[in-house]
Amino acid sequence: MLTGKVIVVIGGDARQLEIIRKLSTLDAKLSLVGFDQLDDGYIGASKQSIDDVKWNKVDAILLPVSGMNNEGEIETIFSNEKVTLTPEMFSQTPQHCTIFSGITNDTLNQYVKKAKRRLVKLMDRDDIAIYNSIPTAEGTIMMAIQHTDITIHSACVAVIGLGRVGMSVARTFDALGADVKVGANESHQLARITEMGLTPFHTDHLKEELADVDICINTVPELIITAKVLAEMPLHALIIDLASKPGGTDFRYAEKRGMKALLAPGLPGIVAPKTAGKILANVLSDLLQGD
Amino acid sequence: MLTGKVIVVIGGDARQLEIIRKLSTLDAKLSLVGFDQLDDGYIGASKQSIDDVKWNKVDAILLPVSGMNNEGEIETIFSNEKVTLTPEMFSQTPQHCTIFSGITNDTLNQYVKKAKRRLVKLMDRDDIAIYNSIPTAEGTIMMAIQHTDITIHSACVAVIGLGRVGMSVARTFDALGADVKVGANESHQLARITEMGLTPFHTDHLKEELADVDICINTVPELIITAKVLAEMPLHALIIDLASKPGGTDFRYAEKRGMKALLAPGLPGIVAPKTAGKILANVLSDLLQGD
Amino acid sequence: MLTGKVIVVIGGDARQLEIIRKLSTLDAKLSLVGFDQLDDGYIGASKQSIDDVKWNKVDAILLPVSGMNNEGEIETIFSNEKVTLTPEMFSQTPQHCTIFSGITNDTLNQYVKKAKRRLVKLMDRDDIAIYNSIPTAEGTIMMAIQHTDITIHSACVAVIGLGRVGMSVARTFDALGADVKVGANESHQLARITEMGLTPFHTDHLKEELADVDICINTVPELIITAKVLAEMPLHALIIDLASKPGGTDFRYAEKRGMKALLAPGLPGIVAPKTAGKILANVLSDLLQGD
Amino acid sequence: MLTGKVIVVIGGDARQLEIIRKLSTLDAKLSLVGFDQLDDGYIGASKQSIDDVKWNKVDAILLPVSGMNNEGEIETIFSNEKVTLTPEMFSQTPQHCTIFSGITNDTLNQYVKKAKRRLVKLMDRDDIAIYNSIPTAEGTIMMAIQHTDITIHSACVAVIGLGRVGMSVARTFDALGADVKVGANESHQLARITEMGLTPFHTDHLKEELADVDICINTVPELIITAKVLAEMPLHALIIDLASKPGGTDFRYAEKRGMKALLAPGLPGIVAPKTAGKILANVLSDLLQGD
Ligand SMILES: NC(=O)c1ccc[n+]([C@@H]2O[C@H](COP(=O)([O-])OP(=O)(O)OC[C@H]3O[C@@H](n4cnc5c(N)ncnc54)[C@H](OP(=O)(O)O)[C@@H]3O)[C@@H](O)[C@H]2O)c1
Ligand SMILES: NC(=O)c1ccc[n+]([C@@H]2O[C@H](COP(=O)([O-])OP(=O)(O)OC[C@H]3O[C@@H](n4cnc5c(N)ncnc54)[C@H](OP(=O)(O)O)[C@@H]3O)[C@@H](O)[C@H]2O)c1
Ligand SMILES: NC(=O)c1ccc[n+]([C@@H]2O[C@H](COP(=O)([O-])OP(=O)(O)OC[C@H]3O[C@@H](n4cnc5c(N)ncnc54)[C@H](OP(=O)(O)O)[C@@H]3O)[C@@H](O)[C@H]2O)c1
Ligand SMILES: NC(=O)c1ccc[n+]([C@@H]2O[C@H](COP(=O)([O-])OP(=O)(O)OC[C@H]3O[C@@H](n4cnc5c(N)ncnc54)[C@H](OP(=O)(O)O)[C@@H]3O)[C@@H](O)[C@H]2O)c1
Repeated sequence: MLTGKVIVVIGGDARQLEIIRKLSTLDAKLSLVGFDQLDDGYIGASKQSIDDVKWNKVDAILLPVSGMNNEGEIETIFSNEKVTLTPEMFSQTPQHCTIFSGITNDTLNQYVKKAKRRLVKLMDRDDIAIYNSIPTAEGTIMMAIQHTDITIHSACVAVIGLGRVGMSVARTFDALGADVKVGANESHQLARITEMGLTPFHTDHLKEELADVDICINTVPELIITAKVLAEMPLHALIIDLASKPGGTDFRYAEKRGMKALLAPGLPGIVAPKTAGKILANVLSDLLQGD
Repeated sequence: MLTGKVIVVIGGDARQLEIIRKLSTLDAKLSLVGFDQLDDGYIGASKQSIDDVKWNKVDAILLPVSGMNNEGEIETIFSNEKVTLTPEMFSQTPQHCTIFSGITNDTLNQYVKKAKRRLVKLMDRDDIAIYNSIPTAEGTIMMAIQHTDITIHSACVAVIGLGRVGMSVARTFDALGADVKVGANESHQLARITEMGLTPFHTDHLKEELADVDICINTVPELIITAKVLAEMPLHALIIDLASKPGGTDFRYAEKRGMKALLAPGLPGIVAPKTAGKILANVLSDLLQGD
Repeated sequence: MLTGKVIVVIGGDARQLEIIRKLSTLDAKLSLVGFDQLDDGYIGASKQSIDDVKWNKVDAILLPVSGMNNEGEIETIFSNEKVTLTPEMFSQTPQHCTIFSGITNDTLNQYVKKAKRRLVKLMDRDDIAIYNSIPTAEGTIMMAIQHTDITIHSACVAVIGLGRVGMSVARTFDALGADVKVGANESHQLARITEMGLTPFHTDHLKEELADVDICINTVPELIITAKVLAEMPLHALIIDLASKPGGTDFRYAEKRGMKALLAPGLPGIVAPKTAGKILANVLSDLLQGD
Repeated sequence: MLTGKVIVVIGGDARQLEIIRKLSTLDAKLSLVGFDQLDDGYIGASKQSIDDVKWNKVDAILLPVSGMNNEGEIETIFSNEKVTLTPEMFSQTPQHCTIFSGITNDTLNQYVKKAKRRLVKLMDRDDIAIYNSIPTAEGTIMMAIQHTDITIHSACVAVIGLGRVGMSVARTFDALGADVKVGANESHQLARITEMGLTPFHTDHLKEELADVDICINTVPELIITAKVLAEMPLHALIIDLASKPGGTDFRYAEKRGMKALLAPGLPGIVAPKTAGKILANVLSDLLQGD
């Protein structure tokens, strides 16, 4: 339980609602900033303006998945009010106060450094990355169905990278009956791909291996589907690039060659905001209770 | 090979193109009616008006998946020209001439009866129904991802009916990590559901079993998700009704209760027209070569 | 519940114990013949000699899976006493009395015909055959592991027949990562094999298709793996023949050619007697309660 | 290719034969010590006594999976001759000569240290451990079928540890239809278990979680299934301990309590020696060619 803990939740989208619900159930004292258009009443939660927060009582501050922009502004879907953070707000909190944010940037890093507070980047955590790989895989499936005129079943699908996302995506396409090959660059990854019943290949041979695919899904966050690789791919092949912006595909060349290549960021929040919110809520409440 | 066989292909959508491609490869002599806007050149295929067909040379006539309406008219996606059949056209064909159509209706039945020709209803065939269950399942997956805010993984999913479509749909949702229960009414179906690692229930207990589902997919072509059943379902539950029109759901009551219930006919042609066309092309060419 | 029902259980192996346990739980009045070495006390069950049974009070008679031999004798694992049935015993029962037996033979058929009683052949039932296909598949897995020096994972495995057993066996070997092809002779079976993600082939091409297998599992109860077929198979290939005696393999020729071919009857009772007993107990109690 | 490379293969079991076959195909010059009873002729391979080896020409020395005992003796299945190594043999080799062994021990470590040669412990490699997890999982399946009277399908199975072996074992039992829970102690492992569709639990709660299992498989190489844990487990539960000797189970207490607990080392070499040999042969030939 979180009885007595004071938590300020600032801005965010539908995912934040699941967090609020969970923390409220655990009996935290919630201060909601940027939620004035929200109907639902939650036990122990009160809506506030950022200026009314009593920072010296706050045990934890929760920023959205997108964090804060470099001007200190925070996205608020449930409010028209502009919410802006200052380093002073952090400084006024008790020393043990922790800031939780999906991702960070230079400005946020400076704020917490200046205030000497602890920042937890939720999206950097291995557990969250793996849980999020589930809605990511489903979003990829949806896109593959929408953007091809063939079934995934029996299609020739290549997944690049056997990291946290790649493993889930590869398993999911295999489960739907695709003929899945996975590109990796370490021998233990090639072994695991084999064990999973998929076809392994080394990314050194990317060009040759992609020459016969119907669908190619990239998870490696560096330019790996280069013009040279694209030039050998079938024209009908669909590329879904999951790697964080700018992705791992030479999109300019793909377009020039008339190929469909889609950069698909942020799938969990798009295809399953409720599940994505629950993932954050569960990990967050474990962290807060563990403190 | 189909060398020397004269086949008239009348109307239809993208699926017909795969059939034309396949029959052309097998060296049939094709007469294409209702395809004037089509660019592609196929070996041995010529575009014709319905009035120019030499019916007395025709070995097989191919109607679209949707067949013919009760006025004898045939849908043509690749033409603005109106194409209308008469029973006389059939009568002029040689006795061995076979008519292939996706589905039939009273008028078409009368035409073939009058002309004493053989009619093959492709959609009635077990093999085609099973092959088509693959794109149907994928279309259902797509809809479930689009119309819920949770992942299919870990969702509670009920599939009603373990027929040709139900088996594929149930397997597919299970493969994506859903918690799948399947309703059936015969003991051998309940046994198979168990063997597949899914949870079986008898449709006599539909009301109780649907009381906790997130997603319900119906394949039974009769009113089975009645108002009584709906009244006990969670309000957030999504119903995807795959059964042929009018489906098996009391849609009026579902709407009244504020539930999302979707009738989803013709998924194969929508989500995977190329695969759906190949399915027809393969079976059709086997049938024509077997003759 | 079976309160008040008088059931005579005659002979059998460990599977019968699960049946006795279940019927006893359902409050039936049990008369156990051929179980004198059995320790366990079951509520409402009493051990008897066949001669002490009051046939005119009996509602149901339960013979073992193996039924009765042509001399009227019944196998008893838990007794040294010889148990022999006569048609007169059946005749003395009330008209509604039903005889349940795993399988039947000419003599048993004559007995029930003479006594005008109903005989239920449990092993003929579709539901039991499908439930039993699960331990059968596991027994086959065990044999494949024991009798090869390679893993099932990545092995080339052919399953012949997509009936009740074939479907389960094929799915199980696929689940373990084998490369599974399935031979069938009907187009709807070939479609289902494809949908399951396995490779279909027509048994007309058995000889060619078995030429590269590591393991071949037969479920077709007729001579199908003939000398001609065997002559083209790799010498190291293992044949596991599940079809009822005498199996579907030319064992004499296989041995002559130095190939390992195993006839493997009765796997459920061997590898999972408790599960096999529960399968019977569940179906039987449903039938008795439905009466 | 390995043309010109001189490799001494000393002792070992059937797995070594696959290695010899592979290296021979790659045109290495092989010296086989401890294989005098072997019939097969391999290209470029000659049988030798340990005393006849020209150590100063040797590029690589290959010891068996079991390595060498502390007296310098090496197991030889295909010979009655006693094969004993001395540190001097290693010292006579050229500086670049590499010694490959499955595992090592103090004596072997001293030998290579003294001779300043490189030792590669094959069994320590991640890729080999993962490939070997496949036959290990199959061996575990075989034991589970042999030592229970129920099916794996529908059984309640716990796997302890989500390492290289645990992941494969858990997946395999799930694939056979068991109800699989997996115990781990890191949050990212619990996330991956969830993603795999299995039930995660923290090993802090081992005692409670094992209280209802039918089969428990341990992969954690430390005493984890203690007397306290065992005391709460069902008496019928089967324990298969895969962890390296002495395993992670209090076997003495298990026996006292009348429970079946099996320590099962070396499964790959037992259930699939040919596959296990190929795994070594593939990795070894990659390493030798990479040098
Ligand atoms: N689109 C979305 O909705 C979405 C959702 C979640 C994540 N993402 C993004 O997806 C990307 C992957 O995320 P993740 O969590 O899976 O990261 P990750 O666990 O680090 O996986 C990346 C994998 O790529 C491998 N890799 C790197 N260079 C490679 C190369 N040249 N050849 C082959 N493999 C190579 C890495 O292998 P090593 O370990 O050997 O380096 C690693 O296994 C990230 O950019 C992340 O931001 C997107
Ligand atoms: N939406 C699409 O894109 C799409 C695509 C393909 C097909 N469909 C439609 O989907 C429906 C199912 O097609 P199908 O090929 O699967 O047909 P099917 O093989 O005949 O399956 C229907 C199943 O429903 C069972 N059933 C009937 N009444 C039942 C009840 N009261 N309780 C439980 N089960 C019951 C039947 O069992 P018994 O065998 O015991 O009667 C049968 O197994 C049809 O209406 C078809 O037109 C739609
Ligand atoms: N060893 C054991 O422990 C064990 C356990 C259970 C059962 N069995 C035995 O296993 C056998 C199969 O049992 P089951 O329940 O699966 O029977 P089943 O459902 O009748 O299956 C047999 C299948 O073989 C097919 N078939 C027949 N001739 C064929 C041919 N020439 N080519 C291809 N397929 C052909 C049948 O197809 P159609 O439907 O088109 O005819 C049917 O699908 C039986 O002999 C049974 O007694 C053994
Ligand atoms: N019987 C056979 O035939 C056979 C075959 C192959 C291997 N093995 C043996 O099997 C064992 C496992 O091998 P492996 O390759 O899988 O090793 P591994 O990859 O190191 O896996 C061991 C796993 O146990 C986890 N672990 C350690 N302590 C734990 C605890 N208290 N609670 C929960 N998890 C814990 C480790 O997690 P962390 O990563 O967080 O520490 C790790 O994931 C070894 O002893 C190996 O020798 C036996």
